[in-house]
Amino acid sequence: MIIDDPAVHAEITALFSRYETALGANDTATLDGLFWPSPDVVRFGVGEALFGAAAISAFRANRAGGSPPRRLGRVVIKTFGADFAVTNAEFTRAHERRGGRQSQTWVRLPGLGWRIVAAHVSLAAEIS
Amino acid sequence: MIIDDPAVHAEITALFSRYETALGANDTATLDGLFWPSPDVVRFGVGEALFGAAAISAFRANRAGGSPPRRLGRVVIKTFGADFAVTNAEFTRAHERRGGRQSQTWVRLPGLGWRIVAAHVSLAAEIS
Repeated sequence: MIIDDPAVHAEITALFSRYETALGANDTATLDGLFWPSPDVVRFGVGEALFGAAAISAFRANRAGGSPPRRLGRVVIKTFGADFAVTNAEFTRAHERRGGRQSQTWVRLPGLGWRIVAAHVSLAAEIS
Repeated sequence: MIIDDPAVHAEITALFSRYETALGANDTATLDGLFWPSPDVVRFGVGEALFGAAAISAFRANRAGGSPPRRLGRVVIKTFGADFAVTNAEFTRAHERRGGRQSQTWVRLPGLGWRIVAAHVSLAAEIS
């Protein structure tokens, strides 16, 4: 299993950027299209837990104004073989002192191509 | 690519349970052993962002009393082919009204076996 094959890594880096651009533009069609169209896809968001592509799409559609603007920090992209990858990124939002973190797991699915099969976005919490 | 091959799914379900048991027992050796021993493994925790196996292990070693006790809620385990899997789980902690969420990405690495290559744990935040 080749880790970080340059061609695969370049594909995921491009997809990561496409996602980030679509998020900033609230381009919900692109965002929806990057997720696995399955009832088993999961997206844990900052304030919501979404199970299934329909729930994720409905959340996007009802999110007035889209995601708050953000600036990426450290980004780690790792690919495993030809069909599997993870991205992990820190981000900051204006007027938000809690640090943001985004994780995506990508799979190259037969007949579909690369899709996010699981995602998790959060703000770091104070430990009580 | 077979999704949720029963044998693969059973392996990851067992590993997910082993992790949960080790977390509850603060068995740091087992927890460390389940992570990819790489500087590129990432674990976003409730209050911390950890890059690399050494940082993850140091966090465990310095976490007095281990992780707060928790009860699992909804768990979704999906496997892709023979070597890739994601687990997503909701959990609750006593005296904590924010819901917990845990995501793990597992890869069966040559010479190592199944390891967590990325993990993200968070408490759902109020949106400001």
